[in-house]
Amino acid sequence: MKKAAIGIDIGGTNTVLGVVDMNGNIIARNSMPTNTTEDYHPFMETLTRVIKETVAMAGDKTEITGMGVGAPNGNYYNGTIEFAPNLKFKGIVPVVDYLKSKFSYNVIVLTNDANAAAIGEMIYGGAKGMKDFIMITLGTGVGSGIVVNGEMVYGHDGFAGEIGHTIFDPNGRDCGCGRKGCLETYTSAPGIKRTVFELLSSMNEPSEMRDMSFNEISALMIDELARKGDKIALEAFDYTGEVLGLKLADAVAHTSPEAIFLFGGLAQADDLIFEPTKYYMEEYMLNIYKNKVKLLPSQLPPGDAAILGSSALVWKELKA
Amino acid sequence: MKKAAIGIDIGGTNTVLGVVDMNGNIIARNSMPTNTTEDYHPFMETLTRVIKETVAMAGDKTEITGMGVGAPNGNYYNGTIEFAPNLKFKGIVPVVDYLKSKFSYNVIVLTNDANAAAIGEMIYGGAKGMKDFIMITLGTGVGSGIVVNGEMVYGHDGFAGEIGHTIFDPNGRDCGCGRKGCLETYTSAPGIKRTVFELLSSMNEPSEMRDMSFNEISALMIDELARKGDKIALEAFDYTGEVLGLKLADAVAHTSPEAIFLFGGLAQADDLIFEPTKYYMEEYMLNIYKNKVKLLPSQLPPGDAAILGSSALVWKELKA
Repeated sequence: MKKAAIGIDIGGTNTVLGVVDMNGNIIARNSMPTNTTEDYHPFMETLTRVIKETVAMAGDKTEITGMGVGAPNGNYYNGTIEFAPNLKFKGIVPVVDYLKSKFSYNVIVLTNDANAAAIGEMIYGGAKGMKDFIMITLGTGVGSGIVVNGEMVYGHDGFAGEIGHTIFDPNGRDCGCGRKGCLETYTSAPGIKRTVFELLSSMNEPSEMRDMSFNEISALMIDELARKGDKIALEAFDYTGEVLGLKLADAVAHTSPEAIFLFGGLAQADDLIFEPTKYYMEEYMLNIYKNKVKLLPSQLPPGDAAILGSSALVWKELKA
Repeated sequence: MKKAAIGIDIGGTNTVLGVVDMNGNIIARNSMPTNTTEDYHPFMETLTRVIKETVAMAGDKTEITGMGVGAPNGNYYNGTIEFAPNLKFKGIVPVVDYLKSKFSYNVIVLTNDANAAAIGEMIYGGAKGMKDFIMITLGTGVGSGIVVNGEMVYGHDGFAGEIGHTIFDPNGRDCGCGRKGCLETYTSAPGIKRTVFELLSSMNEPSEMRDMSFNEISALMIDELARKGDKIALEAFDYTGEVLGLKLADAVAHTSPEAIFLFGGLAQADDLIFEPTKYYMEEYMLNIYKNKVKLLPSQLPPGDAAILGSSALVWKELKA
């Protein structure tokens, strides 16, 4: 029998899941539209069926040790999704309690998606053997997972690790959270687009983007134009790196990690984002921390990171 | 035999020490001028002698379980003081190794003074039974100690927890650390004085402080004038609370503590500092954290906090 864990990632559009062995090999994988309604029961019923199908796909020679779930606004202590803005569920969804009523695995755990990514990095990725590190996910939003002394930081309420919602400028850009100037409004995919629009207004340089609307431009396009030498696009990456570097320097002054991993769409811009971020992080960092903290790309394969991260929750739980 | 721990706090001017029982009663106390030279040996020799005297004062019925040292730039992992700006020692002082060569206690540990204060709060003070909290010391500088899952956060290098050196404004006030706009430059005792001077320039209100020089004014004086209704002094406390509240909201987004304790001179301004800090902390905090995090005054007696905190390191070590 080969030991494996089920990993489930509930995303805004799709829910992906897989059966994963201890080395991070995905033995069986599946997906379903998230299609949530205010009542969580229809979704959880379908999910239960799809989990059973996926376990069957993994075959008889696989021994399932448990189930891990990553979800937006996931609370580790309660095993719940609580008021997730991009899911239609009303109020609090008791995901773990529901799954425990349907499955008999000893380990059924849930946390938010960025925490799951951090644990994935620790179990299968570049953070193997590290006791203190931070995972930053740069996607539509900016998420984070903080590991201290080899343990995930959940905080007293299970909601620790929202570096994306630390404030860069209290008079800054409107954030989806209802406040102003959060890191996320500068260093997410929509954030760099907002920066481009600011620069199109403040700079005089020509740019292909002067013929495009806000809704036409994407982060990927800014990446491509920067590689062709577009000055506005290059400046946008520099500014994004400056804001990120500044707030990462602040994060270092909290938990002094060995490394910070960047994950997600913007992190795939490689040196375009890593170079300025590293430069400004060092610039803004207190002396005692300088030239000590590694800034690294996540080693999780982007397409499978969600499944790997949530399955890693199980191995982490069994180790603890 | 009554169990007790030795607590030593090495300050810029004086070094204070005491023998403390498990309930935080100081059985014997002592102090000496810090008087450091580039060579640390004279200081450590005197300290060794004074420790022996203090232990003798505690009497035969006291069983010493260990020794804890709090010091600026103290490193828990290495047991060293490293490049402390307000001590004259050159380079790295191997305090724990030195003390181990002179004393045979099993536990001899050192950390920075704010971490020691945090552990003091956990063992003897208001954080008893709390697993996640932050200690902020508002003195000549701003220090912090972060506790997660009941453990001090030391980070990979032993230097974690420098919230006083997170950046409020990258173009802001010159900081002693060589950078600009650190929290410390706004919310320390000299920080509120700097704010008063900014306000004397930007506001037109009359104030007794218009007849005083920068060097004449003290934080205590600003406190007294605020209580008499001085508009500039009141506004200075409000602004100090705003800056502190904003950066504490950021800190909450890292480790989501149950409580934040304020300690030190400015914290003794009571409601003058607590009210605006609490107000702005809630204002600037992400929804999921609102109205959950207690902002509390330290329960350590100000005069004895340094001895208590450093002695608490020993009890913490024996518990772990």
